[in-house]
Amino acid sequence: MTELPLVSQLIDALRCLPGVGPKSAQRMAFHLLERDRDGGRELARILAEAMARVMRCRKCRTLSEAELCALCANPRRDPSLLCVVEQPSGVIAIEQATDYRGLYFVLGGRLSPLDGIGPDQLGLDVLAERLRGDGVAELILATSPTVEGGATAQYIAQLAANAGVGVTRIAHGVPLGGDLEMVDGGTLAHAFAGRRAL
Amino acid sequence: MTELPLVSQLIDALRCLPGVGPKSAQRMAFHLLERDRDGGRELARILAEAMARVMRCRKCRTLSEAELCALCANPRRDPSLLCVVEQPSGVIAIEQATDYRGLYFVLGGRLSPLDGIGPDQLGLDVLAERLRGDGVAELILATSPTVEGGATAQYIAQLAANAGVGVTRIAHGVPLGGDLEMVDGGTLAHAFAGRRAL
Ligand SMILES: [Zn+2]
Ligand SMILES: [Zn+2]
Repeated sequence: MTELPLVSQLIDALRCLPGVGPKSAQRMAFHLLERDRDGGRELARILAEAMARVMRCRKCRTLSEAELCALCANPRRDPSLLCVVEQPSGVIAIEQATDYRGLYFVLGGRLSPLDGIGPDQLGLDVLAERLRGDGVAELILATSPTVEGGATAQYIAQLAANAGVGVTRIAHGVPLGGDLEMVDGGTLAHAFAGRRAL
Repeated sequence: MTELPLVSQLIDALRCLPGVGPKSAQRMAFHLLERDRDGGRELARILAEAMARVMRCRKCRTLSEAELCALCANPRRDPSLLCVVEQPSGVIAIEQATDYRGLYFVLGGRLSPLDGIGPDQLGLDVLAERLRGDGVAELILATSPTVEGGATAQYIAQLAANAGVGVTRIAHGVPLGGDLEMVDGGTLAHAFAGRRAL
């Protein structure tokens, strides 16, 4: 392999993908080089384009290919409902599994002071402003049922209370410590419908 | 997802990787977009470069970053031993697991007339010429222990016999139907040392 520096680099680079160890990275590299150069070239092209062009919506912070995402720009979504999720993948999971018609706010993580992730890193100043001025009647917490997700939810519930906005939280049913996007649609729809006031 | 055409395309493109279904492709795409843009950009760059620059050695047909691979160009390798493998990954597996010091010939597949893969597609005309003229004393068959791999081995053994070259085959021990690069090094070293005359 030392005689194939480019192949070794490719194997290393593939390990940035979640769940890919050294053996699978090697298998992927050889598969592309030996049997699917077209697929490899296409993946390289789209990957570069997506990394460069996919940004975050300036209003809700979800992944977007325009300054304002299609959800925030849609006049038929109900602006009195605001659902807070940790990641853009949570937005997609809820859109696919439920008939929710409100808007979203994406934190991009959970409060974790030891890792330097405080309210500002999650855009909670922006969220607080939106709660004060934007006609939100119900804030729905869909943060993960982890310790940090719970602390984040508590913090946001306080912001909402300060702004006089009602708060609900989606029902547990999502497995403890699980990522929202890994939950099957039925469980997620059930948890969403069963959200309770905090 | 229809509002994120580039993200959908990225998820589709990731499915060219072996063992990656729709759920893992989605997880990979969001991981790169949300948490590791640098890793994604680096992967795109190296992937494009590897697809463009990694070619096949003109003598042994293994993956190479020059016209002649480092193995064929190495004067300390023994040219009287020639090991035939199906894929470049087989070369790497044997190099890592054994103390073999001869040369290689990479078929790029197995004889499969129904799929249009005949002797020419595997470079067997080039191999036949090399057996006639190049001072090969022993041809070692390391094709896979599958039906098609066995038929391919039979065909090559006949070429070697016609050229007056002795033929051995690595010992079984490699699991039936298994890919050479998925076998642990110990098993492979044992199978290699235990090769028998055909
Ligand atoms: Zn938005
Ligand atoms: Zn070579």
